[in-house]
Amino acid sequence: MTLEDARALDATDPLAAYRDKFALPEGVIYLDGNSLGALPKATPAALADVATRQWGDRLIRSWNEGWIEAPQRIGAKIAPLIGAGEDEVIIGDTTSTHLFKALVAGLRSNPDRHTVISEAGNFPTDLHIAEGAVTCVPGARLKVVAREDLAAALDDDTAVLLLTHVHYKTSDRFDMAAWTARAHDAGALMLWDLSHSVGAVPIDLNGTNADLAVGCTYKYLNGGPGAPAFLYVANRWQDALASPLSGWMGHAAPFAFEDAYRPAPGMKRWLAGTPAMLSTAALETALDLWADIDQQLVATKSAQLFDILAAAGDALGLDCVSPRDPAKRGSHISFRHPHAYELTQALIAQGVIGDFRDPDILRLGLTPLYLSHEDVWRAGEILCKIITSGSWRDPRFSTRLAVT
Amino acid sequence: MTLEDARALDATDPLAAYRDKFALPEGVIYLDGNSLGALPKATPAALADVATRQWGDRLIRSWNEGWIEAPQRIGAKIAPLIGAGEDEVIIGDTTSTHLFKALVAGLRSNPDRHTVISEAGNFPTDLHIAEGAVTCVPGARLKVVAREDLAAALDDDTAVLLLTHVHYKTSDRFDMAAWTARAHDAGALMLWDLSHSVGAVPIDLNGTNADLAVGCTYKYLNGGPGAPAFLYVANRWQDALASPLSGWMGHAAPFAFEDAYRPAPGMKRWLAGTPAMLSTAALETALDLWADIDQQLVATKSAQLFDILAAAGDALGLDCVSPRDPAKRGSHISFRHPHAYELTQALIAQGVIGDFRDPDILRLGLTPLYLSHEDVWRAGEILCKIITSGSWRDPRFSTRLAVT
Repeated sequence: MTLEDARALDATDPLAAYRDKFALPEGVIYLDGNSLGALPKATPAALADVATRQWGDRLIRSWNEGWIEAPQRIGAKIAPLIGAGEDEVIIGDTTSTHLFKALVAGLRSNPDRHTVISEAGNFPTDLHIAEGAVTCVPGARLKVVAREDLAAALDDDTAVLLLTHVHYKTSDRFDMAAWTARAHDAGALMLWDLSHSVGAVPIDLNGTNADLAVGCTYKYLNGGPGAPAFLYVANRWQDALASPLSGWMGHAAPFAFEDAYRPAPGMKRWLAGTPAMLSTAALETALDLWADIDQQLVATKSAQLFDILAAAGDALGLDCVSPRDPAKRGSHISFRHPHAYELTQALIAQGVIGDFRDPDILRLGLTPLYLSHEDVWRAGEILCKIITSGSWRDPRFSTRLAVT
Repeated sequence: MTLEDARALDATDPLAAYRDKFALPEGVIYLDGNSLGALPKATPAALADVATRQWGDRLIRSWNEGWIEAPQRIGAKIAPLIGAGEDEVIIGDTTSTHLFKALVAGLRSNPDRHTVISEAGNFPTDLHIAEGAVTCVPGARLKVVAREDLAAALDDDTAVLLLTHVHYKTSDRFDMAAWTARAHDAGALMLWDLSHSVGAVPIDLNGTNADLAVGCTYKYLNGGPGAPAFLYVANRWQDALASPLSGWMGHAAPFAFEDAYRPAPGMKRWLAGTPAMLSTAALETALDLWADIDQQLVATKSAQLFDILAAAGDALGLDCVSPRDPAKRGSHISFRHPHAYELTQALIAQGVIGDFRDPDILRLGLTPLYLSHEDVWRAGEILCKIITSGSWRDPRFSTRLAVT
């Protein structure tokens, strides 16, 4: 792959026009959109509107002018990105909180089963929250096993199989249809964490018959730092499951001010407190960008971007831990290296922002909406220069930051 | 009280200058700051900065440039408003979610006790969340009793007494010192919901020896619609209590990506998911306004504003359900009226924004930072005209909105 090859791909890229929808700083090649997505250019104006007009001018009246329906309205905008019905998704809270709700509700839905199974090395909050969720259901327990032991671990005590669709470190992607079928064959519910796959790869929750899913909106969906997360509950479970976080916004009649909790019908019952409307408005604006995007085009371009960096890594003899088969990965590429931290910092100093994942992973996110093939080719060149020159050995690159 | 009297009070009002710190629409007298506080003029610029510079330009680097410490930094800004130590408060999530964490943790702290006691007619989410929390602890139960039966209900099975300091309908205020002492005498933990009192009345959690507290920041604190809530855990309980919502942000080393959960020391363990930074930035800006404000001045002005509306109500023969003694109430005044809904709508049509609380309460919030005595006097005049003219009988005022 030469610079000319990369530019030729850019010339015919059907997603090229989206780059102009994002505000990115000069001199930066941003390969961390899988951690915090870039700022859509439309977002600052949307924030100014929600603050100045909706809050400042309309004040409390805005709850009747679009705010109260926002969690469902925005959920419906996420639905087509995950193969869900518009009435199967709601946004709010955080991925962690939605995981907690889904796990406790899932465990309670079948009192004859007591085990949540998940994968060792899953994203930490999935395992941490599962630890907390099982303490809320008598007899429940969490079983964390290596990926190769997952299938054998499923048994007639399994209540919920909790898997993250795309692995945050390696980019390994589970076969959603196959694993959902395995969970169902064992009589368990399938709960997917889509944080690293939504907006990165095509997802079909309905088509694969998944039961529950959660996901993050501040990565590939560009909703903003800490943007509200989403929860999916398949229609067939919506009446049977209820949230342990039974707050007033999930009540059937929140403004009747009844002492006793009655869960709302549909997805609304998964709301708890008052939604953070400023962060919510930014998310809605970001999602409007996705309305006309063909997910297959995203997947195709992601694969091309991956190949550029994979080739650069191969030329350097780097240990690429991400699958070569695009159907088996998400939209980031990771290299294992004993000095991955220093490499990451040296790249950032050169304007190539990726991230480090403890203990030894250099992770580079590939976001087809705002990265060109040329951007990624240049990032590969810079990586090459840093490694071949040894410039990453500069002591300033080994100072550990609080957030890596 | 004449218009001239009101203006005379405004002329010597030590808080008068704060009115100019808020953006309020022309022609509106806003008596609903107890539901959604007004927009500080500084907030839109702060939102533009967090979006355009911090997110858009600094991107992921902002987590190391102030974001990761924000929940504790902002908690420390709330601390002086509630009589807490700076290391006893954290912000994030919602009041409902913090209530859930505090109740489950409180119940688990003393396995010999099983009962949460709260008040019938408490704000709904307090009771709804308590219903959910007790299902997460074996043997736990919720006992909801009338205010006059609370003292007698405390016994040696009481784990937590959950009270809302200022009642959202009536404005009745519990004596924090007396009720905390009663809870402690019974061997129970005292958990205060300060949603309707923080920024409205002086609060001394440390001085009254309270154990736990939660509160809302989008009312008197003007943090913005659905702004992150706060949680207070007294220093003496911080090592013993842990959150059932054990998400990664509350881990002792979130970026070490360990499979097993280890709660962080101090208040950080109460974090769960990634904080909603846009809403968080608006909250921080709003709190900076409070830094130099003497809470006693707020209380004194609140009492003066109350007296103006109480006098107007008396002249109309309205049934004021709020206590006449300022030490026994918050910073709103409520009238019971069989047509409270229509009265509220008729007031709004005249530019006086208050709210209705099912089934028969007209509630008017008194926010000393941005209301003048003249504003409140004029609101009383308009209420008088609406009632004496019967203009509230116009059928358009009886159409029920989704959010009242």
